[in-house]
Amino acid sequence: MRTYPGWSPPPRTIMTPGPVEVDPRVLRAMAAPIVGQFDPAFTSLMNTVMDQLRDVFQTTNRWAYPVDGTSRSGLEAALVSLIEPGDTVLVPIYGRFGYLLHEIASRCGAQVIALSCEWGRTFAPETIVSAIRTHQPQLVAMVHGETSTGQLQPMDGIGSACREVGALLVVDAVATLGGVPVQTDAWQLDAVIGGTQKCLSVPAGLAPVTYNGRAEAKLLQRKRIERGLRAPAAAATAVEPTAAVRESLASDAIRSNYLDLSQLQDYWSPARLNHHTEATSMIYALYEGLRLVTEEGVEARWARHRQHEEALVSGIEAMGLTLYGDRRTKLPVVTCITIPDGVDGESVRSMLLDRFGLEIASSFGPLQGKIWRIGTMGYSCSMRNILFTLGALEAVLTWHGVPVVAGAAVQAALRVYEGQAVEAEERVQA
Amino acid sequence: MRTYPGWSPPPRTIMTPGPVEVDPRVLRAMAAPIVGQFDPAFTSLMNTVMDQLRDVFQTTNRWAYPVDGTSRSGLEAALVSLIEPGDTVLVPIYGRFGYLLHEIASRCGAQVIALSCEWGRTFAPETIVSAIRTHQPQLVAMVHGETSTGQLQPMDGIGSACREVGALLVVDAVATLGGVPVQTDAWQLDAVIGGTQKCLSVPAGLAPVTYNGRAEAKLLQRKRIERGLRAPAAAATAVEPTAAVRESLASDAIRSNYLDLSQLQDYWSPARLNHHTEATSMIYALYEGLRLVTEEGVEARWARHRQHEEALVSGIEAMGLTLYGDRRTKLPVVTCITIPDGVDGESVRSMLLDRFGLEIASSFGPLQGKIWRIGTMGYSCSMRNILFTLGALEAVLTWHGVPVVAGAAVQAALRVYEGQAVEAEERVQA
Repeated sequence: MRTYPGWSPPPRTIMTPGPVEVDPRVLRAMAAPIVGQFDPAFTSLMNTVMDQLRDVFQTTNRWAYPVDGTSRSGLEAALVSLIEPGDTVLVPIYGRFGYLLHEIASRCGAQVIALSCEWGRTFAPETIVSAIRTHQPQLVAMVHGETSTGQLQPMDGIGSACREVGALLVVDAVATLGGVPVQTDAWQLDAVIGGTQKCLSVPAGLAPVTYNGRAEAKLLQRKRIERGLRAPAAAATAVEPTAAVRESLASDAIRSNYLDLSQLQDYWSPARLNHHTEATSMIYALYEGLRLVTEEGVEARWARHRQHEEALVSGIEAMGLTLYGDRRTKLPVVTCITIPDGVDGESVRSMLLDRFGLEIASSFGPLQGKIWRIGTMGYSCSMRNILFTLGALEAVLTWHGVPVVAGAAVQAALRVYEGQAVEAEERVQA
Repeated sequence: MRTYPGWSPPPRTIMTPGPVEVDPRVLRAMAAPIVGQFDPAFTSLMNTVMDQLRDVFQTTNRWAYPVDGTSRSGLEAALVSLIEPGDTVLVPIYGRFGYLLHEIASRCGAQVIALSCEWGRTFAPETIVSAIRTHQPQLVAMVHGETSTGQLQPMDGIGSACREVGALLVVDAVATLGGVPVQTDAWQLDAVIGGTQKCLSVPAGLAPVTYNGRAEAKLLQRKRIERGLRAPAAAATAVEPTAAVRESLASDAIRSNYLDLSQLQDYWSPARLNHHTEATSMIYALYEGLRLVTEEGVEARWARHRQHEEALVSGIEAMGLTLYGDRRTKLPVVTCITIPDGVDGESVRSMLLDRFGLEIASSFGPLQGKIWRIGTMGYSCSMRNILFTLGALEAVLTWHGVPVVAGAAVQAALRVYEGQAVEAEERVQA
């Protein structure tokens, strides 16, 4: 066998829409020793994580826990558990991750009705409400913050329209949870999926979900206890191999075992019905990451994300660059920049990474090569990182022959920060 | 919002069949800062992890990578990707995890033919070979090491029987990989799933898989690129919401997006086609855990697991306890003990945990309350842990009024270790 050297990550400033930098406290939390999955010390920690998730999801839902997989495992868990094959599912699409919901719903056997609008914009909520009334779907699946285009979908009236027609509303808040208000209860969202590696600044690998009693009722209709936990006494005593009767699954049964929320909630309930082996170290990380949210305060955290967005945008515009997309519905935690004509966007990104250790993102599909995306999420969303990013971007664009206004970006951002500092002082004095 | 205190795990000796203790080097590896998922430093690490997995799976397969989820996510990924609805799938069942394969295959739309045998035993390989010839399934799914009963299924001739009838052979090696020989190529296994939190001693949260060209051919037949990556130029320019044509999924399409191996392999290939966001910190852990396997040597690691099993079994028997199950096919990394008549198994387990900080396991279904299970896996599989376990178990059984032979267990284990030490010295001198 080969031998493998020790490995350390190179120093990086990560300004993509995820994964982003992680607070050293969270990193250290993962280095704690393992405990057993049914050790009372661990199940008690799991219960606390559920409390913490209710806080950040702004909900009193009974169910709020992570699925053990990356964000899209949470999306698929919600969809495969709530969609019966043949169900009509409405998916408003305004970017790449809307297509993902379409894709997953379609693989779950849904009849998907896709609404589309121009990328870089969002839907007027009335458009979605009207489509809900027209198509009377069993489920509506939509993205709250679309990182591919840097847009934030207004949610007004969509929850109540879903209740009118008896549809469940499933919302992808992967990019927004912990950075932008996500009001699960106030907005009447039936199931919401968050991300860890974005505004929560916990490494990728878990997908926090929450859902209410309407969603749970659907799960309970479809629930079945898995073989091997149903005490198959006969099998345990049969000596001769026997060919079982060929059987088909009930047509309304949940098609996944790993992503079956009805089983996952039993595992996260006091019954602790065995399912997977919980990802111990990732739960430690999530606990510590959510503690940091509480210490900061969720509203203060939203305000911090707005503050640094303002500084970044001021700098980008002072440099002479153009933002992509509708400003009225801009996603605060992702800033999309139109790549200037004639500039090789990937060459700029490579130079930022190779010379400055700074990562920004490109985009997908029709936007590839057209925009850069800068994330301002979680621990990466800091004054130091914003100032460094603006300085480095200016230098690399100048190197590439783009006529940017030298020195203007960092000064513009500093004006925002100094102004905010003065305002804050004035508030204290008032 | 509430506040949450800092959290530390209580000190534990973990002697269950997983999750088990983790080498401090692996724990520390997780505390390294995050890098981006497409950062060349990270993709290069991903490639090295593939090399490491080929080593431990004993294969030259092109594909060997982790699925981002716990072990059963890897089982479901293999089954949902390789089973077409309506396929006949043969599942030999000799314990709880065989039922899990039955369950997952059935949710994938398979017509399952279950073979069963008495728990605590395995199948004669000829029985399975003969069932393969009789039923001519498209796929055979089976467990290599069944932790629920502590049994190891002999694999002779099963791989070649599958090739005779054109079936794919999918093997759950979650409990055995890294602790017991798993010979992917020599045994003609088409897809194998390992576990991290067992003999590899890496925290739960990843499921290493490998598969060969026969399995890949099946994936490629069923593959489709997801929406949002197919450059939907039309959607990007459409201004008015349009109701798409209702569409159904092709009947042979892979029903999961998250667990679709045809997409996962594109993500792990040089194309790096975007799918999920790789679980950065868990990959750091897996890299370090697999480095430890290489440093020890995979054969030496198998021998270490055998050595400590011998000491444990000697101690258990010297104490006067009875092992459960067929000794000829005992799984080296799990030792099942019949709970003596009249003893409350859970009371013994609780006292071990509460007084000694030592965790051993119970079992499932028909074996609940009938046996205890002691794992000897990975970092937990050490002389110190075996001696401590025997001493603690003796004390707790004595406390519960079981007439064990005082002091005999630890002495028996010491005799094994001292004897092995003498043998090792003699080998060196010879």
